[in-house]
Amino acid sequence: MKTMEKFNAQYHKFVAEVDSFLHNHLKGMKRYPKTIFDSIEYSLFAGGKRLRPVLLLASHILLGGNTEESLPLAGALEMIHTYSLIHDDLPSMDNDDFRRGKPTNHKVFGQGMAILTGDALLNLAYETMLDNALVYPEKFEGHIKAINTIARAAGIRGMIGGQVVDLESEGKEIGQSTLEFIHDHKTGSLMLAPLEASIALENPPAEVSNTLVEYGQSLGLAFQVIDDILDVVGEDKTLGKKTGSDKDKNKATYVAEYGLDKSWNIAKNLCNYSMEQMATLGAKGEFLKNLARFIIKRDN
Amino acid sequence: MKTMEKFNAQYHKFVAEVDSFLHNHLKGMKRYPKTIFDSIEYSLFAGGKRLRPVLLLASHILLGGNTEESLPLAGALEMIHTYSLIHDDLPSMDNDDFRRGKPTNHKVFGQGMAILTGDALLNLAYETMLDNALVYPEKFEGHIKAINTIARAAGIRGMIGGQVVDLESEGKEIGQSTLEFIHDHKTGSLMLAPLEASIALENPPAEVSNTLVEYGQSLGLAFQVIDDILDVVGEDKTLGKKTGSDKDKNKATYVAEYGLDKSWNIAKNLCNYSMEQMATLGAKGEFLKNLARFIIKRDN
Repeated sequence: MKTMEKFNAQYHKFVAEVDSFLHNHLKGMKRYPKTIFDSIEYSLFAGGKRLRPVLLLASHILLGGNTEESLPLAGALEMIHTYSLIHDDLPSMDNDDFRRGKPTNHKVFGQGMAILTGDALLNLAYETMLDNALVYPEKFEGHIKAINTIARAAGIRGMIGGQVVDLESEGKEIGQSTLEFIHDHKTGSLMLAPLEASIALENPPAEVSNTLVEYGQSLGLAFQVIDDILDVVGEDKTLGKKTGSDKDKNKATYVAEYGLDKSWNIAKNLCNYSMEQMATLGAKGEFLKNLARFIIKRDN
Repeated sequence: MKTMEKFNAQYHKFVAEVDSFLHNHLKGMKRYPKTIFDSIEYSLFAGGKRLRPVLLLASHILLGGNTEESLPLAGALEMIHTYSLIHDDLPSMDNDDFRRGKPTNHKVFGQGMAILTGDALLNLAYETMLDNALVYPEKFEGHIKAINTIARAAGIRGMIGGQVVDLESEGKEIGQSTLEFIHDHKTGSLMLAPLEASIALENPPAEVSNTLVEYGQSLGLAFQVIDDILDVVGEDKTLGKKTGSDKDKNKATYVAEYGLDKSWNIAKNLCNYSMEQMATLGAKGEFLKNLARFIIKRDN
């Protein structure tokens, strides 16, 4: 399938750019205290899909932006995502021992260091984005707005809000609206943020912004529904973490709420809707359209 | 002593402004999920001295700035300070049960919520500062630099770096240079940041900047040395936390390294030096000069 080969090549190019940025960025810093740099790199380079950075780079290019300007924001998004996983895996949160096929951060570095590593990554994300903003005097406002968008998505009104409700819901019967709140905030916010950040940087016409936002919202939810499905039907080895853990923890999931078949239908419909959105943008929307196709086919 | 009365009145006025800003800021947000707002307010309004925000407001006024512009940065500094205390108190870090005379956050809300509360406060600090930056289009650069200064002070090259070395040093024999690194970074960075942030906002002549930086560095170190002393000679009730805990944990402190008398001398000399710095600025430096006097006399 020619289209998907082209897509894969582009996706890997984006990932290579993000990885190279993150490597160089950390190498450029004085590596003291050494442990925290080792710990940061352990989790940051554990083989993540780099989905959020790719969404940022791709949507920024779609809007006419250049990658050099958006790479630090893309890298910062991955730092925020990684910090949230490290803290989420802690014994007092999800208590997970494996992530991406490797022992979780606190299993290797201890809980205290894992907490500090998460804190360091969250803070480093802001340092990185603010350093970058200073390079673009003619676009200060766009950069402040882009960073602010990411901050809101990562915070109480976004991801952390979702984590709090998730933590409070464990072992409880929750309704559909709470389940949607958790998914929308815990995962959805940081999937939408890259698109909103690109919009803040490039200020496109309202119809283009709306299309990107619609795309990001449906893609983010689809991604999470598929995550719930993979926790049931996926294989530990492919997934890199223990499957069935949602059920063990009596977690609120789409599968628990709707069953497997209906969850699949929801996910497919959301991905189709995302693809339709991108189709309205013609050739420019090709990569993000194929990204939605890739999401529905993912097995990890 | 008339001077100190006037100083006290001004100090309390600053504190009232910061508290009122923080209260209104949180009230203005949709309080969902409720638990995290309760948890944030529990720790944020636990009776802190508001030293970092006061340093920011006072130095900003000294440089001709107005409080309305710097209050959100001052509030953000207190959020960052509070997050660091919540995470520091966790069982896998310092394992403290009391702070400011009240049970620590995790004792009340549980460890998972305490971790998320710290994360939320750190992130909210950035949201708050970025929202504020957007209000001052003619000073975008100054605001980005001010936030960046705070970010650097809070991160791996600042406070978190100090926390990491502190965590790694527990129960070990460490030398003078490691002890100084911990104090300089864990406490010093976030005491210097308010002065550097004011400088970034108002861009004063180099000699004034240098005076403020010298002041902030010596004051920050003095503050930490006195903290070490109070852990030995202070009273639990006045201090609001258990004394003697540094020794119990075999913590690196000035008292452990130099003994009580020499530590007092170091602290006094540092405070005197801070006061001399401010004396060179005349009447404008009066408040910050008295703040150094206040630091050496503090008992909590």
